[in-house]
Amino acid sequence: MPQLRLALAQVDPTLGDLAGNAALVREWAAKARDAGAHLVAFPEMVLTGYPVEDLALRTSFVDASRVALERLAADLAADGLGDLPVVVGYLDRADADGDNVADVDRLGVPKGSPQNAAAVLVGGRVVARYAKHHLPNYGVFDEFRIFVPGRDLTVVRVRDVDVAIAICEDLWQEGGPVAQTRAAGAELLLVLNGSPYETDKDDVRRDLVTRRAAEAGCALAYVNMVGGQDDLVFDGDSIVVSAGGDVLGRARQFSQALLVVDLDLPHDPAHATASDATRPVDGVRRVTVSAEPVAPYSPDPAYLTPASVAEPLDGEAEVYEALVVGLRDYVRKNGMRSCVVALSGGIDSALVAAIAVDAVGPENVVGISMPSKYSSEHSKDDAADLAKRTGLDYRVVPIAPMVQAFLDSVHLTGVAEENLQARVRGVVLMGVSNQEGHLCLTTGNKSELSVGYSTIYGDSVGGFNPLKDVPKTLVWALSRWRNADAVRRGETPPIPDASITKAPSAELRPGQTDQDSLPPYDLLDQLLERYVEGAHGRSELLADGFDAATIDSVVTMVDRAEWKRRQSAPGPKISPVAFGRDRRLPITSRWREDES
Amino acid sequence: MPQLRLALAQVDPTLGDLAGNAALVREWAAKARDAGAHLVAFPEMVLTGYPVEDLALRTSFVDASRVALERLAADLAADGLGDLPVVVGYLDRADADGDNVADVDRLGVPKGSPQNAAAVLVGGRVVARYAKHHLPNYGVFDEFRIFVPGRDLTVVRVRDVDVAIAICEDLWQEGGPVAQTRAAGAELLLVLNGSPYETDKDDVRRDLVTRRAAEAGCALAYVNMVGGQDDLVFDGDSIVVSAGGDVLGRARQFSQALLVVDLDLPHDPAHATASDATRPVDGVRRVTVSAEPVAPYSPDPAYLTPASVAEPLDGEAEVYEALVVGLRDYVRKNGMRSCVVALSGGIDSALVAAIAVDAVGPENVVGISMPSKYSSEHSKDDAADLAKRTGLDYRVVPIAPMVQAFLDSVHLTGVAEENLQARVRGVVLMGVSNQEGHLCLTTGNKSELSVGYSTIYGDSVGGFNPLKDVPKTLVWALSRWRNADAVRRGETPPIPDASITKAPSAELRPGQTDQDSLPPYDLLDQLLERYVEGAHGRSELLADGFDAATIDSVVTMVDRAEWKRRQSAPGPKISPVAFGRDRRLPITSRWREDES
Repeated sequence: MPQLRLALAQVDPTLGDLAGNAALVREWAAKARDAGAHLVAFPEMVLTGYPVEDLALRTSFVDASRVALERLAADLAADGLGDLPVVVGYLDRADADGDNVADVDRLGVPKGSPQNAAAVLVGGRVVARYAKHHLPNYGVFDEFRIFVPGRDLTVVRVRDVDVAIAICEDLWQEGGPVAQTRAAGAELLLVLNGSPYETDKDDVRRDLVTRRAAEAGCALAYVNMVGGQDDLVFDGDSIVVSAGGDVLGRARQFSQALLVVDLDLPHDPAHATASDATRPVDGVRRVTVSAEPVAPYSPDPAYLTPASVAEPLDGEAEVYEALVVGLRDYVRKNGMRSCVVALSGGIDSALVAAIAVDAVGPENVVGISMPSKYSSEHSKDDAADLAKRTGLDYRVVPIAPMVQAFLDSVHLTGVAEENLQARVRGVVLMGVSNQEGHLCLTTGNKSELSVGYSTIYGDSVGGFNPLKDVPKTLVWALSRWRNADAVRRGETPPIPDASITKAPSAELRPGQTDQDSLPPYDLLDQLLERYVEGAHGRSELLADGFDAATIDSVVTMVDRAEWKRRQSAPGPKISPVAFGRDRRLPITSRWREDES
Repeated sequence: MPQLRLALAQVDPTLGDLAGNAALVREWAAKARDAGAHLVAFPEMVLTGYPVEDLALRTSFVDASRVALERLAADLAADGLGDLPVVVGYLDRADADGDNVADVDRLGVPKGSPQNAAAVLVGGRVVARYAKHHLPNYGVFDEFRIFVPGRDLTVVRVRDVDVAIAICEDLWQEGGPVAQTRAAGAELLLVLNGSPYETDKDDVRRDLVTRRAAEAGCALAYVNMVGGQDDLVFDGDSIVVSAGGDVLGRARQFSQALLVVDLDLPHDPAHATASDATRPVDGVRRVTVSAEPVAPYSPDPAYLTPASVAEPLDGEAEVYEALVVGLRDYVRKNGMRSCVVALSGGIDSALVAAIAVDAVGPENVVGISMPSKYSSEHSKDDAADLAKRTGLDYRVVPIAPMVQAFLDSVHLTGVAEENLQARVRGVVLMGVSNQEGHLCLTTGNKSELSVGYSTIYGDSVGGFNPLKDVPKTLVWALSRWRNADAVRRGETPPIPDASITKAPSAELRPGQTDQDSLPPYDLLDQLLERYVEGAHGRSELLADGFDAATIDSVVTMVDRAEWKRRQSAPGPKISPVAFGRDRRLPITSRWREDES
């Protein structure tokens, strides 16, 4: 029974940084070598970062990715890593002769047929390539737009083990590369992923890899990237399972990690004669990297189950870390260092401040309290208390003089006057952002974004919104969790209790509370989950148990706020359907669910 | 040689307004009957409006479209139009048995398999259906995301003429329904379209229909919608050509129109025996609506070439009308009546004001001049002059007191102080918009949006941007054209000459001009066309003849402004690649063309 020490490099590439990402691969390949690995694999498109979107249609970028791959192969050899097979994802172009391109009759991908590809680098050269077969084209994914699919499975023999390679969506679809893996008699299916985080996706993934390992008839190794990219966060959660579905290794979520697993891989019955020449399987390309099996060795206890099996994070811990990583990477990868946020004393801005402090450190967070004549004393106190608890750079700028200057020049009353206050705060905040070079954070939660409960160009100003996909009820839960976690660690809870327990209010007029214009948040969030994420129509919502008046009022608010959402800042996706490219609706639409 | 009087109803539906669109079909079907037509056709998805985007994934909406179609058939019969075959586009669901669904192995369209469909309504019933085969999934189109393609061609026999039906992209692709039309021996290919306007697309369309008519071996009728839908404008330009490529009729662009053409259609040699039973062709569904030919009649001179052939608009006239229609429909279809725009005295705001006045009337346009201490006298004069020329509602709100109020509270200098002025104007403008209920227009042209030459939440505030896809050089050309057109019509030119001829300046600091920070606009626009629309990389741009320093500086500006564009207002697409869903790039990206 051949042995193999497999390393999965769960790393955080930066989109478009070919040189930096190549350096990252070299660094982690060296770690794999130091750990005694016989094979190391990196995530989907690690060399370019992911998702590249329409950069795939830019010839110069595709060329640069191909050149960077060849250079990486040479550099790895120069680093003394030429004997270690390194599997990396990158951006390629389908061969001019149409080789390894699935039937693309109905696809209109222009300009040089880009492919989402993987390569095996050995001895200073690219020895094998694979192009993703199944292209996701739903949710946040537009891969039919930018890639042509591959057709052939690639199986590389490494130390007498036949390793099939697949990429991300290939694993989520029945048949295809998984079935080809079984047909080819491969002994390990290695899957490179750029699989974005969603709440509880780790459980789904665990079930999926187990099922597909059984279908492929062999062990399965799943390597995913970590880190933030605009409105996506990759959580890692790389995992290795045996053909029988036992978890042999699992990496901690949201951190770079080298997952090393010692595998005992029973030979497939077909193996003995399997080779390019002797056992052709339709649609399978075979490349022998090394036929010599590994000399029998005693597995390192550090890499044995359960030592290498990390527990996935639970509930709020997982979401909170996704938000921190999403913000940290947005700041860092865009060449910034610090953030500014408006502190109202309310729960949304308190949670955002806590996330920002955890992401970039309190010394890099400016919090500005901008009280108006409608701001309660407790709001000002709560903002100051938050600042004290977290140690961020706290400032107070009362807005009355600016608001009055506008009212002296323009006749504004009612909602227009309420919006004015929010916009004056936005101008102050962006002023400080421009003057001092901080990323401006906006704090509207998903419930508010859904129903349009915000002032456009007011409290919505900012380059990034950590709460964009976080419903209000989860805002409270995350705040409680973060405070409790601090207590567990013997630290000061960052968020004032009063911010968590008081009734939410925009404080734009005397005595205002959110519930003047909205249903209670627990009811609202349940309805929004079904309407926004479930795309339930009115009759389904009625069947879900909501009353007609609430449905009609909420659905109308959601539909009418589309124009505001179209101009909103990006923020980390944590739900099955986030606002943005996950949910594409017309602004101009007279469709109302109550017509159905 | 059978005759047929064909009517194409080039109408302007409203997205989601199933009842209103059905009423529109009934109204124009009656006009077709009054014109003596034997067959009338409406655009792609006329019943739902187009593009519906992810509304296609909402079960309630698909159901409502199907119900509305059946009701429309019955209502047409009740209107006394049951004898007139009416062809309409709508949203359907693929049959549960998988009938008429192309191989969708690689498509992941969820929830009830929506289809972009056409139906033939006769005698109060739906007598034939067709589902679009070729789904566009590039540019602004995401049809693989939301539709499953059809497989069978539908041929209806109307008054002894075999009419094949196809939808939009079916015509742009080789083979498929066009080839099936020839194989089926059809005598007229009727194509329903939702084909958005781009500059000079009319010429492309003319060539295309001629070529495809030859390939199909029969006459071809192309009916397109008109009107605006968010960032798309449909220009109509419906056209009928003979099998030999002669233009038999063409509708005026940008207006609702009934194009009526008297056709003499030579029978296909296969015709005599062609029927469901006698001549099965693989993948063709035949339905006989009426086998009896039309009794010979003398064509109406009004419908004879060249009476029914409108000249397509030329150059600036065409673009200007696209912008007017795009704005007018955005206002009207969103239930608004009026606009507010900031008047700086510069050319962008002057052109936007002229477009707004043409779109909704001067009585529905508020123009606000907001001079600062850096505003020149000529700027104030030019703004006032524009107001006088157009008759819009003109107001002056000096911003110095508001700006000073901020400077008294927050330390802002340099660019932060420049941005402050723009943002104070934004607050005033949105205040008036909220107080009085006007749509706020923003005026940043495509050149500015490209290089980020604007203040986010400042001059960029607004719900709609008529110039979003208009480069600065075209802004000048359109302004000159609009003035000259006024002179031709004996009217007052709306735009002050000084606004056209003076050097452009943001006037945010003393003596500032755009050319302090940007290359000359004619050079800039040429470079942007190749980089933004052509996706040229650095080496291609060098080969295009631009110097390295200009390329590097402009490309860097464009790349760094992605985050601002992500929050920008929609505006009418007029170029091959508009900003928005036409060009999808990551915000976070370290890719720089000078690395290639």
